[in-house]
Amino acid sequence: MTTDELHSRILDRRSFLCVGLDTDYQRLPDCIKGGSAAQSVLRFNKEIIDATAPFCISYKPNLAFYEALGPEGMKVLEDTVDHIRSKHPDKFIIADAKRGDIGNTARLYARTFFETYDFDAVTLSPYMGVETVLPFLDYPGRYAISVALSSNPGSSDFEQQAVAGAGGHSPLASEDYGKFRSEGSTLQPLYRTVMEKMMEVSTPENLMFVAGATKAEVFKEIRTFCPDNFLLVPGVGAQGGSAEEVIANGANSRGGLIINSSRAIIYASSGKDFAEAAAKAAAVTARL
Amino acid sequence: MTTDELHSRILDRRSFLCVGLDTDYQRLPDCIKGGSAAQSVLRFNKEIIDATAPFCISYKPNLAFYEALGPEGMKVLEDTVDHIRSKHPDKFIIADAKRGDIGNTARLYARTFFETYDFDAVTLSPYMGVETVLPFLDYPGRYAISVALSSNPGSSDFEQQAVAGAGGHSPLASEDYGKFRSEGSTLQPLYRTVMEKMMEVSTPENLMFVAGATKAEVFKEIRTFCPDNFLLVPGVGAQGGSAEEVIANGANSRGGLIINSSRAIIYASSGKDFAEAAAKAAAVTARL
Repeated sequence: MTTDELHSRILDRRSFLCVGLDTDYQRLPDCIKGGSAAQSVLRFNKEIIDATAPFCISYKPNLAFYEALGPEGMKVLEDTVDHIRSKHPDKFIIADAKRGDIGNTARLYARTFFETYDFDAVTLSPYMGVETVLPFLDYPGRYAISVALSSNPGSSDFEQQAVAGAGGHSPLASEDYGKFRSEGSTLQPLYRTVMEKMMEVSTPENLMFVAGATKAEVFKEIRTFCPDNFLLVPGVGAQGGSAEEVIANGANSRGGLIINSSRAIIYASSGKDFAEAAAKAAAVTARL
Repeated sequence: MTTDELHSRILDRRSFLCVGLDTDYQRLPDCIKGGSAAQSVLRFNKEIIDATAPFCISYKPNLAFYEALGPEGMKVLEDTVDHIRSKHPDKFIIADAKRGDIGNTARLYARTFFETYDFDAVTLSPYMGVETVLPFLDYPGRYAISVALSSNPGSSDFEQQAVAGAGGHSPLASEDYGKFRSEGSTLQPLYRTVMEKMMEVSTPENLMFVAGATKAEVFKEIRTFCPDNFLLVPGVGAQGGSAEEVIANGANSRGGLIINSSRAIIYASSGKDFAEAAAKAAAVTARL
């Protein structure tokens, strides 16, 4: 899918929403449980997907929830992707996998998510360097999504650390970053260095970034040095971010945003109306 | 397994060696191929494991190679772990997974690797913060292994960047780090900040670090601020690191090292003698 096509779908649906399929058997409504945990998860996913499809542009299974079920869980993942592809072919399907390894191994992960499974994009953790994304960039119409700034409290541990000597970039303009500027003229937060180095080897047609919604005031800053790439925004809903603020500061002329909500949508009700409640929650989240 | 037990096994085997099971169907000897790719990989793993067991303390399947085979590949992973547990119960089994996600998701990954599959340890990518390791620390006798400094060229992209304001730590003593010292009195490489923050919430009984062997001169430095934790050392063999140098600079009174070699051992021969050749290569690698 090109970014133009993705933009068209945002306009068609009037929505930036990605529904996160963080499906935990222990949180499923009783009415959907039956047979194995894996079978229950698949049934739940299909109902959630069919109910929310009119209101979103994307689905994002979180791999941890499928891997925890063992080999059978990976079959559920495969069947979930197949269900979306066959019933809702306009959706952009993201593997939330946060993989990040050296080139030799990264090639295998790219094959896993783009060939073995039929994902459009996969989230990656950049710690080990630019080579963590390179093999993913060679698949036309598919995307690496590097974590840049996440929405968890731990994002201050390393992602927001000031780094020096990142290649002579000027410091951030925002007053929020005075603490970085005071320490040296080339200091900037690590996530900016990650984004800049990744952008040097990619284009907006093969790379996106994760940028956390609980830091909505940072989006304006990010758009000064990264105007074109799509941003995948977690942290709306259960994690407390505001979609309106994200859209106001993070959208660009091509749409430029995929806004994820997981638990606030898929667990909107634990009763028999769980799918209907998920649809209602989806309808009001991340509207254009 | 406690670190004392692991140390005993190092002394028993006179070896620091971990055999990396980066098993790629396309690189298997013709003589072992037959049936599905997954079946061939499992047969190969069992022969390699049985042949090398006298010369190593640990095995490390690289998850990418199993995930690329789809759900059936995860069954091969499970069967490989079961084979090691039943035939070679003294081995320390590491999932090379490089997972790294927020607390909610990290809990599921801990369940995956320590409950669904029976690994002793799992490698993690620390970019998203200290919370990426926390849920893994609650399993007695099992270990999180955070990547600190990897052995690939990309380790200079972010891991070795100088970071500021990491809590007032003094700069590194080595002359090699003059470039950091010249920029400010509290600058140090990111991997040191990662290690120090991780050490604050853990003990050597539940946390290890990945430290790359192609930077053997750095081991002495690392041991000044991290004397006790076990270090998992990749990059020996195909990636060019010297095991002797690593042992001289990185070992401590508890052993303190797990030295991995993958391709140089498991692909030592592509003929019918592949298992015997792997044993020979294992026998001379990372000897105590």
